[in-house]
Amino acid sequence: MTLDRARRPGPTVRARVHEHAAAGERRREDRLATEEPLEVRLAWPGAPPRRVWVTMRTPGHDFELAAGWLVHEGVADPASVHGVAYCTDEALTPDQELNVVTVTLAAPPLRDPGHRHAGSGSSACGVCGKDTVDEALATPRGPRWSGPLPAPDVVRSLPDALRAGQAVFARTGGVHAAGLATAAGDLLVVREDVGRHNAVDKVTGARVLAGASSAEACLVVSGRAGFELVQKAVAAGIGSLAAVGAPTSLSVRLATDAGLALYGFTSASRCVRYA
Amino acid sequence: MTLDRARRPGPTVRARVHEHAAAGERRREDRLATEEPLEVRLAWPGAPPRRVWVTMRTPGHDFELAAGWLVHEGVADPASVHGVAYCTDEALTPDQELNVVTVTLAAPPLRDPGHRHAGSGSSACGVCGKDTVDEALATPRGPRWSGPLPAPDVVRSLPDALRAGQAVFARTGGVHAAGLATAAGDLLVVREDVGRHNAVDKVTGARVLAGASSAEACLVVSGRAGFELVQKAVAAGIGSLAAVGAPTSLSVRLATDAGLALYGFTSASRCVRYA
Repeated sequence: MTLDRARRPGPTVRARVHEHAAAGERRREDRLATEEPLEVRLAWPGAPPRRVWVTMRTPGHDFELAAGWLVHEGVADPASVHGVAYCTDEALTPDQELNVVTVTLAAPPLRDPGHRHAGSGSSACGVCGKDTVDEALATPRGPRWSGPLPAPDVVRSLPDALRAGQAVFARTGGVHAAGLATAAGDLLVVREDVGRHNAVDKVTGARVLAGASSAEACLVVSGRAGFELVQKAVAAGIGSLAAVGAPTSLSVRLATDAGLALYGFTSASRCVRYA
Repeated sequence: MTLDRARRPGPTVRARVHEHAAAGERRREDRLATEEPLEVRLAWPGAPPRRVWVTMRTPGHDFELAAGWLVHEGVADPASVHGVAYCTDEALTPDQELNVVTVTLAAPPLRDPGHRHAGSGSSACGVCGKDTVDEALATPRGPRWSGPLPAPDVVRSLPDALRAGQAVFARTGGVHAAGLATAAGDLLVVREDVGRHNAVDKVTGARVLAGASSAEACLVVSGRAGFELVQKAVAAGIGSLAAVGAPTSLSVRLATDAGLALYGFTSASRCVRYA
């Protein structure tokens, strides 16, 4: 196949492919979800930008991704996010500039993100940057959601509502989505990414950059409910997590400890409550 | 729900859940895929064990996971893996001991895995431990597969063959799988994990610990074909990658550069060749 893409990466790229079916073979055009690396740098008054994370991601909502990740990691208080910008480092090529963002905080970070010289991560990564098993298992601190939670029939409505907002998935079949919903089932924001953790980071980042609270009744995700997604939901102060896929043993344990309502195998016909 | 698990973690745990369907609610027993952290330490002659990776994983085939990851990362030559053992560090509790493995190499590693003080990762992680965008995008070096490749009709047969080997998925619906297949479509090894990258690490590790070559005709995976999975397949010397899900723009670019045949949306009825 041949990739045809403009210099500025969009969320999808065109590709020429060969499809082999039992009945025969054909050439056709296809769309792929774009996957590109993103480097996140962090600066605050008196501290020059330092690299804190490298991740694969689908371009688009990059500022939200960076801000949301920093909040979920307990590095940045939402109110302290002062600015986010693409990097204009002279050592970078124009291509690279769009893959490097700098988040500037108005105050020093809540914890040192850089004691490992340079943290790093992946598009599907939540444990990244954790040095030890104990650190990886830490329950995020923060206020717990005390508002209303969606009723089970509202939970069952969320995957279809999420899918209606999945523009990139509709074209590629290749990305995950996350959405933030009220107790009544209204979706406030939907974001997509090749990495399911990134989609959740973008949702929280969208709220942070809009000056809104990331704490809401329900986070709905198109994939499984792994431990790191529960950690992010708890860190953002969300009241419940509804996953289309299965939860894991550790995600159920953390959700139970943190008082998060956890649903798996969520669809229009059923949902299963695990915590 | 209540978790009921023995001290030694198995691949699944029992859980009591509430299922909410349109017709009503019921309590029932369910099975969850186990997710636990694993810390990997690396030692070689003259060098005491040092922590190189922390990941979430489904317990089982832990030694293979550790060995396969080190080979995919270009840290260990397969022939240099001298031994793998659970840790008996006196500072660890019995629970922790089963979540820490030490890989001993017969010779110094091919590259220093620890220049970041302590690398880290996640169950779904392939970019972890990479410091920069350039490092994350590096094409793995190694011999390319020069043997026969599976014909498209063989590729289409692989997902069903893989599913037949997915014992944990059958019980939980919550894990990914990877398998190594010959050009004729015979599966040599199948491994499962909550992390799709881990499943691939376990497959290569199984071959390495059995003294067999990790280079084979085809790697088949139950999920999508992200960039990091293509990197692992190339690092292991595999000739083709068949994914049940979609590829990304970057995975197609790397597969094209590295001469890896890449199939997406693979099922009994069709497969789509992207590279």
